[in-house]
Formats: sequence, C-alpha cells, structure tokens
Amino acid sequence: MARGKFITLEGGEAAGKSTQIARIKAALEARGIETVVTREPGGTRLAELIRGLLKDEYEDAPCDRAELLLFLAARAQLVKNVIKPALDAGKWVVSDRFSDSTFAYQGYGRGLPLDAIETANSFACDGLKPDITFWLDVSPETALKRRLGREAATNTGADRFEREQAAFHERLRAGFAALHAAEPGRIARIDANAAPDDVWEEIWTHLKPILS
Amino acid sequence: MARGKFITLEGGEAAGKSTQIARIKAALEARGIETVVTREPGGTRLAELIRGLLKDEYEDAPCDRAELLLFLAARAQLVKNVIKPALDAGKWVVSDRFSDSTFAYQGYGRGLPLDAIETANSFACDGLKPDITFWLDVSPETALKRRLGREAATNTGADRFEREQAAFHERLRAGFAALHAAEPGRIARIDANAAPDDVWEEIWTHLKPILS
Repeated sequence: MARGKFITLEGGEAAGKSTQIARIKAALEARGIETVVTREPGGTRLAELIRGLLKDEYEDAPCDRAELLLFLAARAQLVKNVIKPALDAGKWVVSDRFSDSTFAYQGYGRGLPLDAIETANSFACDGLKPDITFWLDVSPETALKRRLGREAATNTGADRFEREQAAFHERLRAGFAALHAAEPGRIARIDANAAPDDVWEEIWTHLKPILS
Repeated sequence: MARGKFITLEGGEAAGKSTQIARIKAALEARGIETVVTREPGGTRLAELIRGLLKDEYEDAPCDRAELLLFLAARAQLVKNVIKPALDAGKWVVSDRFSDSTFAYQGYGRGLPLDAIETANSFACDGLKPDITFWLDVSPETALKRRLGREAATNTGADRFEREQAAFHERLRAGFAALHAAEPGRIARIDANAAPDDVWEEIWTHLKPILS
C-alpha cells in the first residue's frame, strides 16, 4: 500500500484554515482517500492536556522556552501515535498547523533562536516533514476586519494590546514569507483575502497534481 | 553581591540524594548562605503540572521524545523563574537532579540521540550549567538491597520487570560514568554505598573549597 500524504495548513488567526480543511477532507474522501484531520497543539489525550497547559490562564504561565518545548512535546506524541501510523496505513493526514507555526510564532514572533528550534523540532518530529503546506496569507487589514466581524460591535478601536498584536502579526507574516521563500516547492502561498470559493480553487490547483 | 553557586545531585533511585541534600543545605545555612532546594521535574507550579503528566499512569503515556521534551519544558520554567533569579540574588541553589539525569535516562537509558539532547537541553537551560555536581554512585547490589529493604518482605525475588530494570540501571550507571569521565572537574563521583556519614564526609571535601 502506498504511503499516505501529509498536508498542513498554516497562517494567522482568521485566515480561514478550518473552512479549507473541511473542503480538502471532502475532496479527498470523494476520491476514496481515507483522511485523518488533526490540529496542533492537540490530537492525542496527552497533547490535549499539554494544550490545556499552554492555553489556560493561570499563575506561572509558561516562559518562552517552556512554551516552545511544550508545543514540541505535544507534536512528538501526535507524530508518533497519530500521524505516522495513519500515513503508514495509507491514509492521508491534514493538520491545522504544524512545524511552520513553531518557526513563525516562537522563532520569528518571539525571537527564539531558529537553529535550536530546527534541531529540537526535527527531533520532536523524528524527521517527518509535510508533503505540502498551504500558507493561507491574509493582509493585516483583512485579518483585522474578520476579527472585528467576529467580535461584532463590542470593539470601538485598537487599544494598546491590539496594536502590540498588530506588530506581532507583522513579524509572524514576515516569518511565514521567509519560510515560503526557503521552501517554495513545499510551501504554497495562497491569497486568503479572497472569498472561500476562490481560496479553495487556488488550493485545488496545487492539490490536484499530487492526487494523480 | 556575588552570584550564588548551583549544586546538583545525581544518581539512581535509593542513592541517598535526599539525605545528602538536607545536609548540604544545613551546612550552607550554618555558614550564613541562603539556600534554595529544588527538585526535577518540578519546583514551579507549571513544572509540577508537567511532573503530573510524566508520572501519572493513564492511556496515551508520553512517547520517549515527548517525555524528554516535557522534562525540558519543566526545566526551562524552573531555570527561568526559580534558579536564575535565586543565583542572581546571591542565593545558592541545590537541585535534586538536573541536566545530567536527562543525558543518563533519556540518552544512555532510552537511546535517544545525545547530540539532539545536548542542543535542546542547552536551549532549555538558556546555557546554565551546575557549578558542581555530586554523582551518588551505588552498586547494583546496594541499590537492590535498599529497594528490597524499602519494599519490606513483599518481594520474593527478581521478576522479568525487575531484571529489565536491572539492565536499564546498568545503562544509566554507564551513562553517569561517561558524563563523569567527560567532565571530571564538574562532576564528582561519590561512593554512595557507604553509610550516610561517610558519604557526607566525601561530599564535604569537595564542597569546602568552593565555600572559601
């Protein structure tokens, strides 16, 4: 049996990843390909417990280095117990975020050293890399508009925290752009400012050749 | 104010670490040195939560790589929030286990690659290394005798699991020996088969010169 393919979706908040993951899964299954959808951090019981440590608000929040290592611990468990067994069984795996998020958020975003991230991440993944990654790139304006839309009429303008977020998201986006430039064959940049149907069409042009 | 010193104790189970840590703390405080005692994994709220993930018995137990990364996440938090601030404030820190345990257990014991451990551990510690490490070395016979003593009359002999444990502990001990051989100036090998008073005397001969 042929090994399955590993597809990841990356991008900031409100890029539309969930919508496109549902479309990818539907398109693959319509062609008789069994598809496992997962998300990071999470996807196993241990990894979801780690997700809790990362997301909860409490005293003694993880420092930057602990945060990175917790993400990688969750990834190691997900790769070993979910992703690799599925690929070995010929299934395809679609993950909402994977290694590129670590480089973008903890590396480019928080400024942790990229070479140490590279070594530690490759160790966590036991060498596994995605076959194809869709970077859903939205402009800061689109991201803000969608966020405000989601938060409805409660927002009146950008406060200090939102402005900090804006600077952080700019570093994130520059990070994804650098990752894309380094591996243009694996990471496809998708203009995610467009309507969902148009985004899907662009994804499909990249996905179709892999299916045949 | 002079920076404090960082002392770690290493060795297998039943090596007598807790007893000697109490003596070190008492000896330092008798000389007016404020001393912080900690343990790994643990020592902060987050790190104790991670300790729970590592020690609990449940489905989806951490795979070897996730286990290592969880230990390192706990260490990163402990170094950042407890050990470094204490040393900077001139206090001394005594830790029950630290990096050498990771090399011995996850590297030599479980066979994970030492070079990746080195990079990831140095990242977790942000470069911090102990000033002096006491490796409390007990022979397999002593360790077994003490374990049996602790478990009282319930044991009748070594079963398959205990024999596996014996092989694992041999690899552990060989690992500590290799670490000691590589850094004899930092890691002092202490014959911990002796009585607690004699073990303390040997530790004291190494500790005294650092105090002056």
